[in-house]
Amino acid sequence: MVFSGRANPGLAQEVAAQLGTELVPTSAYDFANGEIYVRFEESVRGSDAFVIQSHTSPINENVMEHLLMVDALKRASAKRITVVMPFYGYARQDKKHRGREPISARLMADLFKTAGADRLICVDLHTDQIQGFFDGPVDHLMAIPVLSEYVARRYGDEHLAVVSPDAGRIKVAEQWSKRLGGVPLAFIHKTRDINRPNEMVANRVVGDVEGRVCVLVDDMIDTAGTITKAADALMAAGAKGVVIAATHAILSEPAVERLQACAAREVIVTNTLPIPAAQEFDGLTVLSIAPLISAAVKEVFEDGSVTSLFGGRA
Amino acid sequence: MVFSGRANPGLAQEVAAQLGTELVPTSAYDFANGEIYVRFEESVRGSDAFVIQSHTSPINENVMEHLLMVDALKRASAKRITVVMPFYGYARQDKKHRGREPISARLMADLFKTAGADRLICVDLHTDQIQGFFDGPVDHLMAIPVLSEYVARRYGDEHLAVVSPDAGRIKVAEQWSKRLGGVPLAFIHKTRDINRPNEMVANRVVGDVEGRVCVLVDDMIDTAGTITKAADALMAAGAKGVVIAATHAILSEPAVERLQACAAREVIVTNTLPIPAAQEFDGLTVLSIAPLISAAVKEVFEDGSVTSLFGGRA
Amino acid sequence: MVFSGRANPGLAQEVAAQLGTELVPTSAYDFANGEIYVRFEESVRGSDAFVIQSHTSPINENVMEHLLMVDALKRASAKRITVVMPFYGYARQDKKHRGREPISARLMADLFKTAGADRLICVDLHTDQIQGFFDGPVDHLMAIPVLSEYVARRYGDEHLAVVSPDAGRIKVAEQWSKRLGGVPLAFIHKTRDINRPNEMVANRVVGDVEGRVCVLVDDMIDTAGTITKAADALMAAGAKGVVIAATHAILSEPAVERLQACAAREVIVTNTLPIPAAQEFDGLTVLSIAPLISAAVKEVFEDGSVTSLFGGRA
Amino acid sequence: MVFSGRANPGLAQEVAAQLGTELVPTSAYDFANGEIYVRFEESVRGSDAFVIQSHTSPINENVMEHLLMVDALKRASAKRITVVMPFYGYARQDKKHRGREPISARLMADLFKTAGADRLICVDLHTDQIQGFFDGPVDHLMAIPVLSEYVARRYGDEHLAVVSPDAGRIKVAEQWSKRLGGVPLAFIHKTRDINRPNEMVANRVVGDVEGRVCVLVDDMIDTAGTITKAADALMAAGAKGVVIAATHAILSEPAVERLQACAAREVIVTNTLPIPAAQEFDGLTVLSIAPLISAAVKEVFEDGSVTSLFGGRA
Amino acid sequence: MVFSGRANPGLAQEVAAQLGTELVPTSAYDFANGEIYVRFEESVRGSDAFVIQSHTSPINENVMEHLLMVDALKRASAKRITVVMPFYGYARQDKKHRGREPISARLMADLFKTAGADRLICVDLHTDQIQGFFDGPVDHLMAIPVLSEYVARRYGDEHLAVVSPDAGRIKVAEQWSKRLGGVPLAFIHKTRDINRPNEMVANRVVGDVEGRVCVLVDDMIDTAGTITKAADALMAAGAKGVVIAATHAILSEPAVERLQACAAREVIVTNTLPIPAAQEFDGLTVLSIAPLISAAVKEVFEDGSVTSLFGGRA
Amino acid sequence: MVFSGRANPGLAQEVAAQLGTELVPTSAYDFANGEIYVRFEESVRGSDAFVIQSHTSPINENVMEHLLMVDALKRASAKRITVVMPFYGYARQDKKHRGREPISARLMADLFKTAGADRLICVDLHTDQIQGFFDGPVDHLMAIPVLSEYVARRYGDEHLAVVSPDAGRIKVAEQWSKRLGGVPLAFIHKTRDINRPNEMVANRVVGDVEGRVCVLVDDMIDTAGTITKAADALMAAGAKGVVIAATHAILSEPAVERLQACAAREVIVTNTLPIPAAQEFDGLTVLSIAPLISAAVKEVFEDGSVTSLFGGRA
Repeated sequence: MVFSGRANPGLAQEVAAQLGTELVPTSAYDFANGEIYVRFEESVRGSDAFVIQSHTSPINENVMEHLLMVDALKRASAKRITVVMPFYGYARQDKKHRGREPISARLMADLFKTAGADRLICVDLHTDQIQGFFDGPVDHLMAIPVLSEYVARRYGDEHLAVVSPDAGRIKVAEQWSKRLGGVPLAFIHKTRDINRPNEMVANRVVGDVEGRVCVLVDDMIDTAGTITKAADALMAAGAKGVVIAATHAILSEPAVERLQACAAREVIVTNTLPIPAAQEFDGLTVLSIAPLISAAVKEVFEDGSVTSLFGGRA
Repeated sequence: MVFSGRANPGLAQEVAAQLGTELVPTSAYDFANGEIYVRFEESVRGSDAFVIQSHTSPINENVMEHLLMVDALKRASAKRITVVMPFYGYARQDKKHRGREPISARLMADLFKTAGADRLICVDLHTDQIQGFFDGPVDHLMAIPVLSEYVARRYGDEHLAVVSPDAGRIKVAEQWSKRLGGVPLAFIHKTRDINRPNEMVANRVVGDVEGRVCVLVDDMIDTAGTITKAADALMAAGAKGVVIAATHAILSEPAVERLQACAAREVIVTNTLPIPAAQEFDGLTVLSIAPLISAAVKEVFEDGSVTSLFGGRA
Repeated sequence: MVFSGRANPGLAQEVAAQLGTELVPTSAYDFANGEIYVRFEESVRGSDAFVIQSHTSPINENVMEHLLMVDALKRASAKRITVVMPFYGYARQDKKHRGREPISARLMADLFKTAGADRLICVDLHTDQIQGFFDGPVDHLMAIPVLSEYVARRYGDEHLAVVSPDAGRIKVAEQWSKRLGGVPLAFIHKTRDINRPNEMVANRVVGDVEGRVCVLVDDMIDTAGTITKAADALMAAGAKGVVIAATHAILSEPAVERLQACAAREVIVTNTLPIPAAQEFDGLTVLSIAPLISAAVKEVFEDGSVTSLFGGRA
Repeated sequence: MVFSGRANPGLAQEVAAQLGTELVPTSAYDFANGEIYVRFEESVRGSDAFVIQSHTSPINENVMEHLLMVDALKRASAKRITVVMPFYGYARQDKKHRGREPISARLMADLFKTAGADRLICVDLHTDQIQGFFDGPVDHLMAIPVLSEYVARRYGDEHLAVVSPDAGRIKVAEQWSKRLGGVPLAFIHKTRDINRPNEMVANRVVGDVEGRVCVLVDDMIDTAGTITKAADALMAAGAKGVVIAATHAILSEPAVERLQACAAREVIVTNTLPIPAAQEFDGLTVLSIAPLISAAVKEVFEDGSVTSLFGGRA
Repeated sequence: MVFSGRANPGLAQEVAAQLGTELVPTSAYDFANGEIYVRFEESVRGSDAFVIQSHTSPINENVMEHLLMVDALKRASAKRITVVMPFYGYARQDKKHRGREPISARLMADLFKTAGADRLICVDLHTDQIQGFFDGPVDHLMAIPVLSEYVARRYGDEHLAVVSPDAGRIKVAEQWSKRLGGVPLAFIHKTRDINRPNEMVANRVVGDVEGRVCVLVDDMIDTAGTITKAADALMAAGAKGVVIAATHAILSEPAVERLQACAAREVIVTNTLPIPAAQEFDGLTVLSIAPLISAAVKEVFEDGSVTSLFGGRA
Repeated sequence: MVFSGRANPGLAQEVAAQLGTELVPTSAYDFANGEIYVRFEESVRGSDAFVIQSHTSPINENVMEHLLMVDALKRASAKRITVVMPFYGYARQDKKHRGREPISARLMADLFKTAGADRLICVDLHTDQIQGFFDGPVDHLMAIPVLSEYVARRYGDEHLAVVSPDAGRIKVAEQWSKRLGGVPLAFIHKTRDINRPNEMVANRVVGDVEGRVCVLVDDMIDTAGTITKAADALMAAGAKGVVIAATHAILSEPAVERLQACAAREVIVTNTLPIPAAQEFDGLTVLSIAPLISAAVKEVFEDGSVTSLFGGRA
């Protein structure tokens, strides 16, 4: 049985449809003071429940609704509860950057465990270590096949390069390069002039991008500052064009303006987070993550191997 | 050490001041996508920490901030973490009214336990059973001395009656009656005509209120529908005046309009929840709950008896 | 597989028979010093186990036997253990009435969880919040259909009224009224003269009962003081007759004498607790709760919806 | 602070007196249906609480009362809760003798942990492995110094022998022998004729007891069948006299008759379990375990070493 | 699905073969610094996993590998994880012999629980109480049928006696006696001269062994000091011959030399621990425990009764 | 009280000495079959215990000894147990690189929690996310001040550069640069030719190192393959000299040969892991981490701020 919170019902419906089922009818509304109420309209006793909720803005409401749904399933005797988080909220606070901070990503894992989650399905976690925060199985899906296949189909005839927006993400860029048939890699070196480490200088492009269409890849686009500067730097370095590809389209203010204003000719994202009509713009392409999630749900339901299907991390 | 989230800093400052200390400086802000960040600016290692947050609107943000603060304290080696909830969010969902609902009040207790709470201090829980939801000590404070003392001082010369807005709260009204020197009790019987149970009839006043100033008491005022109808019914039944007294001023839309429009001459509440200037109106009196909370914190800190001070439930 | 402790084997056998099975043969006896020994005579490995025990007097022995049976099932590899408590012991201590008391009803839930219980089936809990004390699914069954159907069949031709013995249980009386076709409601107001709250006065009947056969309803009859006084008050108020209906027949001394001596013409209870021959008397009618429990067990076993069958709280 | 249940208040008072304190006043009574109610009459917040209860008959009531007291202390904010069990109930069911039995001694440890126990103080556990059942510190006290010192004082001038009533307890007898200055050991071999293992024969005395006063030692006397037969066998084997010494005087029917009728001239026990006047008889000597327990409580309270004081097992 | 660590692959293969399956291909190797790496080469999602590892020397490596395999299964969504320990490491540290020791056998149970074990299958635990250390089902298998059947077949024509190497194991010897048709029992009394308890004297044979072939039985042979001295004592007491039978062949230095040098004509053990070729010697007979384990696995898998098959302790 | 396992007693003694105390005398030895035995020779009741053990080779023995010590402390009533891991074993397995692997670093955190650890003190974790694996406070110390101060003192007069051996560790190199007064950064780009991603090419030096003494920094040196190739590459790129600095000297075979053979003029490490005499060589400098650990222990003991002292991560 597939359940959906109110954050991204479109994605959940798509997943359900691909599984040949329908979303379980669910009442969910806010009381006057903001408290959330949820109730399932059908018996869930003994069910193998998959609860989908995107942790989009307003993120705390959506997380709390997700937790309440899990609690309701537990108390209504669902046999197994799989929490599906296309985007895992608070993933970036995965360590203490300084003393006396929370480790919010660990807290999230514990809250869902407490509410009753038996396992998680996530897409492109900010760091792989987050899998270890949950005390149980985590299926970690990768959006790269979805994104790279689209890029290959659309830009396959061009001279391509894959570009990482910073040094820390070169490994992901290498996977992209391999999937695009071995195209060259580059990255943006935004960490200071190597001779004057305390002065921030302009983004420097490392690698040869001249005359190439650059595929600039990242896991998420939040305010889009880094990635749009990177795009501009690539054009300045002689790139023929820039295409931005990222899994999670958070698109906080002023991401949309920045993306529209930057040099990228196309911005390719998935629908792990819902994209309201007001945020759509020319050049934004939204690929559906639903086939990936529905295939994972199917394998979990049938106890098949998610690893073999989706790239070996499950 | 006393800590405060961003929901009701005024109350927390008052509590700290009465304890002869200051709030621990804390950074707290929202990221662009709504994720909350918190950090304490001083060492909390080994501290006996009291974390105050009102679960006011936007309630889910405030709850999550509260949880993140507790997690940060746990990871920064606080010795003991007491969660102070002047208003306990989701307290009304304390049972399954129908199948396949969550028991949100229990989930709240479990989430705070998971984050690291060692004990709770609460004020006027919706039902006493909620104490049993938390696996640890709960100090359950009563606002009735604060409220009733004010009423006695202000209206002591009048012929008073204490009125419960429904049959389920008569026990609380009895406590009021005792504290006001044995004034008569009444209640509003809004549950149907006893001879025609399927027809809802007007609120019927049970007990003699004629010529008396009626103190209409409840634990919380949310949208104020029930209580304002009760006030009008009392006037219709010949009351000389109506005063409304309640602990938690949620005041969701359209509570303020209703309260202003109703027959009550004064509405007395506490500041367990913050009341923004826009919600203040003539006839609204806000008493501070800070002395009660600071006394409780002091007793917990010094391992004294909260029971003896605050009415025997601690 | 259905298991029974020694407290109420008759009920358990009835449940088993209705499920088309037999109780699993079980050895249970007391050692010389009162320690209890239990052992199952058949393999229970992988079984879906339902363990029935009424928490009747001597209640602590019966609770401990229940716990030992659950422990034995856990260690013998039962797949799922459902604890069936027709009467939930210590349910009335569901909050701290005063400081430094236990919350015994929560402790009970935790003890059964610790012993190995996966879920509970209960009948008419003293307060609904007790569901939230157990960390797992609770099926909360209602005896009202069983009781009200009998009353309708037996007294349907009379002019009836439904009466609550105190103000706190009017909601249950409303459900009775609805099930009996909308007969009038009344209640006994035993909480003091409203004008002199510190003096206890005689029970006052609120509502019109004159010439009617009154169905006096409650969740349990312990020493029967309140309910028999209520019955007498109803007769004094002109009732044509009184019938008492309650789910749990604890019948502690001197309940039987009181019930026999009072004005009620019939006392209708269920067998959630065993009623020894010595406690039977003319006018006592014991309805079997076994069909309700066996239907719930069947639904749990087959993962059907208990909610739809038994009134929406499961 | 020292607390006592109702099972053995004399012992608890003695312990408190030796610690220079008094028992915390506690209300405890049974409701009509056997449910137990407990409440402490003084604040226990922040206290280092020691809760003494002997698990004597009616054992299940006493265990439940003990659990309720621990729960009440936890919810009333005791800082640390030490459960003192002079006799650990259900200790003999410390393994599965056959399939589908509970391991009741482990269940007991888990129940006390769940209720809130931080540590245990026990006297002469049936097997040492029971220490490992509790997830926390266990102070395991030995009564042998108390008992052996008395025997040495009283019978030191006689030719003594120490006798174990069966082969399984020879190690304890060795400790006795050492403490009595190296007197000879013997044991009763009641396990069959070695040449005809399926026939039970009379108890055979192994070791030389002729002309000696035999100190027959065991951990507990329940129905006294084994030990009284052993005493008679010793006399038959030429012993000059028999003295029985055991820690726990359960004395279930017909222990008193058997002990009075047997050949032993004195039966020496401790008051880990209360001995009602009706069970006292000539020749029964009850030594107080209170000094041992109060010394252990003192050391735990002051964080000293129980090991060094009481024989190395703490 | 059956999994094996690297400690005793031969036994695991045998078990798998008897179950008609194959071991799941597993990568396991040590990194340069001794850290162990494990990975399963096939999907284990939803599997009923049995993980076999003998806790042989180097015991800590083998235990850690076992734990890592369980963790990997948990994270890879195995449905149920049964840990098979033919030999349970650290079983002898099952209590505190003196203060400030660990209870290592309990720690082991907790570590496997934490890693994700749902149940245990063990063979001949050092003490039965260890079953109670694990919080879940434990199937405790007995090797005595395997060993005694071999002895009966091989030595059935001789005049036999069963001998326990010390007084503490007589109960096991009784079971042997019964299985061998009621042959006489004896035991070695190595605990001092009964008249001079502080002097250790030569082993004394209790029981008549003259002219008999003695079957000397124990649970494990570690350095073989005790058992070889016992064998020699039996010959000195006139035995016709000695056969040693034990379940667990730890065979630490200098066990092999001692066993070869002693008077026993045959040493019969099982392969719960692997026996390297270098430790084999004439007169050593190794019986396979695989049929016992595979039968238990089969019953657990099919939810049958292990109790009925293997001697009533499961 | 400070305790030490047998892995690195020198470091522990140094820590104790700096704290003005001595190591608690502890018995620890191996049984013949490799099982470890530990016991503390003094009372630890109520102590604030710090247990130091380096997870050096043989790593699994050392980890198990560490766990056993924690269990013994828990059972002997230590008040608080802080586990000090100068090197955290299995830290590199902090995520699933492929499906069906364990997350060993999380398992380690859980094992220590289960054994009884209240908090951890670690030095330079492989990734910061590991802090989030432990459910409690983690003090994460940084060796960089110790190492960089030495380098500054020794090589401060040279023209320095800080070099990261791969792109993933540039952030650490930046911290070094800052501490050395802003010297230039470089890194080794060993990930393929950017134009031919599937061919591994020689290590390429990014940044200007010509004529400079390069400080090559890493968290650990295991087999030293990567770092020695980096050193050679730096010399080939015109460096004046190379100095290697790393926190954890695992030095697995053939690290010592490689380091001796490579171009580095000095290899600077700390003693988080013991360095046996046989592994010492000319050019190896071992700085003591003891002052850092003892300062942290002191602050934890006195509830001061580790954050302020050691770089903000505590």
